[in-house]
Amino acid sequence: MEDTSIYLHDIPLEQAWERFRQALAQAGLWHPLGKERLPLDRALGRITAEPVWAARSSPHYHACAMDGYAIRSEATAGASDRQPRELKLPDEACYVDTGDPLPDWADAVIPIEKVEAVGLETAARTPEAIRIFQPVTPWANVRFMGEDMVATELVLPAGHALRPVDLGAIAASGGRWLEVWRRPRVAILPTGSELVPLEEEPSAGEITEFNSLVLAAQIEAWGGEATRFPILPDDLGRLKQAVAQAAADHDLVLINAGSSAGSEDFTARVVAELGELLVHGVAVRPGHPVILGMLGRQGASEEAFPPGRPVIGVPGYPVSAALTGEIFVEPLLARWTGRAPREPEQLEATLTRKVHSSAGDLEYLRVTVGRVGGRWVAAPLSRGAGVITSLVRADGLIHIPAGVQGLTAGEQVTIRLYTPRAELERTILALGSHDLTLDLLAQFLAARGSRLTSANLGSLGGLLALRRREAHVAGSHLLDPESGEFNLAYVERYLPGEAIVVLGFVGREQGLIIQPGNPKQIQGLEDLRRPDVRFINRQRGSGTRLLLDYHLDRLGITPDSVEGFNREEFTHLGVAAAVASGRADTALAIRAAATALDLDFIPLFKERYDLIIPQAHYESRKLQPLLQVLEDQDFHQAVRSLPGYDIEPMGRVIHIFAP
Amino acid sequence: MEDTSIYLHDIPLEQAWERFRQALAQAGLWHPLGKERLPLDRALGRITAEPVWAARSSPHYHACAMDGYAIRSEATAGASDRQPRELKLPDEACYVDTGDPLPDWADAVIPIEKVEAVGLETAARTPEAIRIFQPVTPWANVRFMGEDMVATELVLPAGHALRPVDLGAIAASGGRWLEVWRRPRVAILPTGSELVPLEEEPSAGEITEFNSLVLAAQIEAWGGEATRFPILPDDLGRLKQAVAQAAADHDLVLINAGSSAGSEDFTARVVAELGELLVHGVAVRPGHPVILGMLGRQGASEEAFPPGRPVIGVPGYPVSAALTGEIFVEPLLARWTGRAPREPEQLEATLTRKVHSSAGDLEYLRVTVGRVGGRWVAAPLSRGAGVITSLVRADGLIHIPAGVQGLTAGEQVTIRLYTPRAELERTILALGSHDLTLDLLAQFLAARGSRLTSANLGSLGGLLALRRREAHVAGSHLLDPESGEFNLAYVERYLPGEAIVVLGFVGREQGLIIQPGNPKQIQGLEDLRRPDVRFINRQRGSGTRLLLDYHLDRLGITPDSVEGFNREEFTHLGVAAAVASGRADTALAIRAAATALDLDFIPLFKERYDLIIPQAHYESRKLQPLLQVLEDQDFHQAVRSLPGYDIEPMGRVIHIFAP
Repeated sequence: MEDTSIYLHDIPLEQAWERFRQALAQAGLWHPLGKERLPLDRALGRITAEPVWAARSSPHYHACAMDGYAIRSEATAGASDRQPRELKLPDEACYVDTGDPLPDWADAVIPIEKVEAVGLETAARTPEAIRIFQPVTPWANVRFMGEDMVATELVLPAGHALRPVDLGAIAASGGRWLEVWRRPRVAILPTGSELVPLEEEPSAGEITEFNSLVLAAQIEAWGGEATRFPILPDDLGRLKQAVAQAAADHDLVLINAGSSAGSEDFTARVVAELGELLVHGVAVRPGHPVILGMLGRQGASEEAFPPGRPVIGVPGYPVSAALTGEIFVEPLLARWTGRAPREPEQLEATLTRKVHSSAGDLEYLRVTVGRVGGRWVAAPLSRGAGVITSLVRADGLIHIPAGVQGLTAGEQVTIRLYTPRAELERTILALGSHDLTLDLLAQFLAARGSRLTSANLGSLGGLLALRRREAHVAGSHLLDPESGEFNLAYVERYLPGEAIVVLGFVGREQGLIIQPGNPKQIQGLEDLRRPDVRFINRQRGSGTRLLLDYHLDRLGITPDSVEGFNREEFTHLGVAAAVASGRADTALAIRAAATALDLDFIPLFKERYDLIIPQAHYESRKLQPLLQVLEDQDFHQAVRSLPGYDIEPMGRVIHIFAP
Repeated sequence: MEDTSIYLHDIPLEQAWERFRQALAQAGLWHPLGKERLPLDRALGRITAEPVWAARSSPHYHACAMDGYAIRSEATAGASDRQPRELKLPDEACYVDTGDPLPDWADAVIPIEKVEAVGLETAARTPEAIRIFQPVTPWANVRFMGEDMVATELVLPAGHALRPVDLGAIAASGGRWLEVWRRPRVAILPTGSELVPLEEEPSAGEITEFNSLVLAAQIEAWGGEATRFPILPDDLGRLKQAVAQAAADHDLVLINAGSSAGSEDFTARVVAELGELLVHGVAVRPGHPVILGMLGRQGASEEAFPPGRPVIGVPGYPVSAALTGEIFVEPLLARWTGRAPREPEQLEATLTRKVHSSAGDLEYLRVTVGRVGGRWVAAPLSRGAGVITSLVRADGLIHIPAGVQGLTAGEQVTIRLYTPRAELERTILALGSHDLTLDLLAQFLAARGSRLTSANLGSLGGLLALRRREAHVAGSHLLDPESGEFNLAYVERYLPGEAIVVLGFVGREQGLIIQPGNPKQIQGLEDLRRPDVRFINRQRGSGTRLLLDYHLDRLGITPDSVEGFNREEFTHLGVAAAVASGRADTALAIRAAATALDLDFIPLFKERYDLIIPQAHYESRKLQPLLQVLEDQDFHQAVRSLPGYDIEPMGRVIHIFAP
């Protein structure tokens, strides 16, 4: 806790960057780092450090632009179908291939298709003369010297990212080597006594170190060269030594993590002792415990110290670490490699639900995006800094500025896209109840060039999302207690007057998930009344919750008699994980979730899981691949192989609601 | 010419692709080529060949999410500022770091900032107890096992291009290796007796071979591995041998070129003799002499032959070659690596001028793009298949479909972008007279994060472009014969009633460019009357042309008395190149053009070259970097170092026309 003495409070991002930039500028490091001379065949993607001027003209001589005959244009004046001109070889016409130099006496080329050969014997390639049926203009089908580039002309400016055709243009103008900005070398030092390398199986309290993998890949993608150091324990002395060593032959040092203010967070101290701590804490979320500093600049007097080495303390949570890469490392690498910082494509969309945000911080809200009926919608994803899948699944980020308390549902928001817009255009949004088979469906759709994004809102949440025009499809398994039928009564109630297709998808077994060997001797729902049986529930609005409520009611079991009734998880696998970890003894869920985590299962009910699809989407081009997959025998087989599933209802139109 | 016997006529692109696709499918090659197992740190950018399922949950235990104290939440009920609860260590509270496992007896974590330590001596890290001022909810600040991913859950689908965060998610879920589609191996065989390697200085008739450089870079960018073979002469036997050898250990063979129907174009014959010629000629421009074939499938019976090796005969002109890469190689590599083909971003724009197109062909029209006053405009570039700079300068392509005779000026067109839209947003379009200093200006603007695109329309063309709202700036040096003043009279005449700023830019020397040593003994404009002096002119509407007309008129020299008066070039360097190559003896141009090509120069006149800028653009944010550069001493120095330039007028507002 002593380290908190040097904990500077979170400052706004612009201010943090400004301090960093000034320190870099003072150290002469707010420029590309240096030049490198490369042959053309190794320069793809690199940034030119100098303008490229044409060393010679292209073409460097008058070149015939067609296979045909070089001629004097004046000799063709007045030629016509009726009065063709005959030109004798080799004095008046001369066979040329594309690229041949134009003979001195000629001033044009007539293509071979436009002449008739005279006196051509089968064995001979060369006719005696050619017949021409139309006049030829001077310099026709000739590429002048310098047509493409004239020597000394600018071929490419400095600061240009080299594409394949650029290499061709440089070669065409006589260039063979060129000056590009060298790649920055970045050291990544994973620190933390709790970390274990990827190769080892972690026990409880041990964490697989993978931030260095992500950071190294980011650096590679952004034009740098990364060195991943071995994991360091939380030991101030060893950390200082390793940082000093890394700084000696790298342009930037990343220390991950120890950047917070905990008892074993040494990063700020290492930076302060080896140089200058510029920033400790930035008002961004996720990612606020960032450290920015310059190594090798101790003391007060500026001039007395050699140029510093920038160092960044990267927070430990994977989302924070990856975003710190985007926010601090990418712009620095852009500057150092002479290119413009990346600018993500932006998109305006409607936010699907309310989001509270801490007014003090700039928040990076991860969202999935889809186009529903001509309107772009953005659905917020998990905001946990430890939930790396929220970044994996994100189609983009919304920046909620500091000073803004949150966003309201239906608000227009600007999204900085990760996923290309074209891919989002062909994305089917499936909100509602999540089912494992939706992952399989996504897989089969991907093979057809389509894309399925699903998010779990529960069955009822899916119907409400359809009502708000925020999804194309809703997965639902809502049991109507009156009729014993699935979904239809709910569609009627929640989507009244709308044209909706209820499409059968899968049949599933629901039952109680229990620990292996059933240590608590649970037999059925009646056991939920036992005080020693800790239940874990699904969230309100989920089909499984309704199924439970229905059966508890029939059995006369009240919610308050069930220990853990109010503890909610949002997925089948979520409750299964709770049982597997011992956080609960049992849960109502599908068989596949039990099988996945090697748990036992007491089957209780069969239910039907349907796809609820507004008619307009059902008939849209976008949805057709989905309907095709439902007929695909391979897909049937894949679903059948999952435990507890049957495909009996698949693809059957259960009901069509007309408006 | 005998090869024309197997020349199949140009067929539409879709038909060509369909034949190729069918042949590939028959050979079992319309699928990804095969899998490869890679460790995570080598998988960036590769495409998953299998879905990735979570091998373990993440977190794999209940993990403390904050540095603080693990507690039982029930023990905090009712805590407040007035009635804090005191929890004793180690039984009721236990210090935990982020990531530590939650002790069995605890169900929540309270962050360190929210507690007060009791009985903490300076030397001791551990207090005796902590004081808590607010109740804590169960499971607060705890990351449940499986919060991010539950074992067996889908982490990533097959067919996914791996980004840095994806690697992190796989590692987090216990993955270490993964299956990706292997990179296709592509052989590139440059053929042509006229070709010389990059390292050699070509003489007339020799062409530097660089298409293989461009194709190899394309293949690398698209996820393949390219092998560049040495240049082969036009020799059927050697070509066949090399192709057969390349086919043995490559997935695709590219033969460049010899794909046309000339006397030394052997490619079609090689393909036909080693396999099956599927397509010879595709109705696209540039790029129509494309060959598609399958090697190793001779004869009639399908089953009798082993799976073929696809081969593409790539046309020789650099633009054709690069576009053939985009049209045929890229989609094939996409298929073979399991990803979707690239889809360029599209943009709607207004075409600046009429374009004729051959109705039989699909034409790829290269354009530069800019946003002028809220409207996107697209200006066609050179259409020559040999002009690789037209691809380098292109911001995108317009596809003019077969059956369309052309496009009209002002027509709305769809552009498939090469340049990202964000870059186009900050592009300043300078049309009009071209000057070498505009290249320098572009260079200095790039360093400021701005972008200048210039195209040469001549001075008058620039003013007309401003009138049509197609440019931000027009470079102009139009001499008014009445007043002897530059530009003002023309702005008044061609942009009447508009708010325009005439901004001084550079002073230049104009004079006669002559061959070194002045072999024709040219002294001045009077010599243009001599029949032995071949002149080359600039195009009508250019400032230099007006300057010439003015002075010829003063001297009483009529155009028809000047040999070559009607031969027009579009740039100073263009006329200089004509003189350098001997195509002409002299031309009127700026001194820098003579110096560039080591020609002699007879200075005749001084002129002022201004930037004509509509007031609205002059005041726009977009133009400010340009105005700043005009004040930059380094820019002044760079311009002064060019021969024949002075910076006397630079940045001076010559006149403001009010509406």
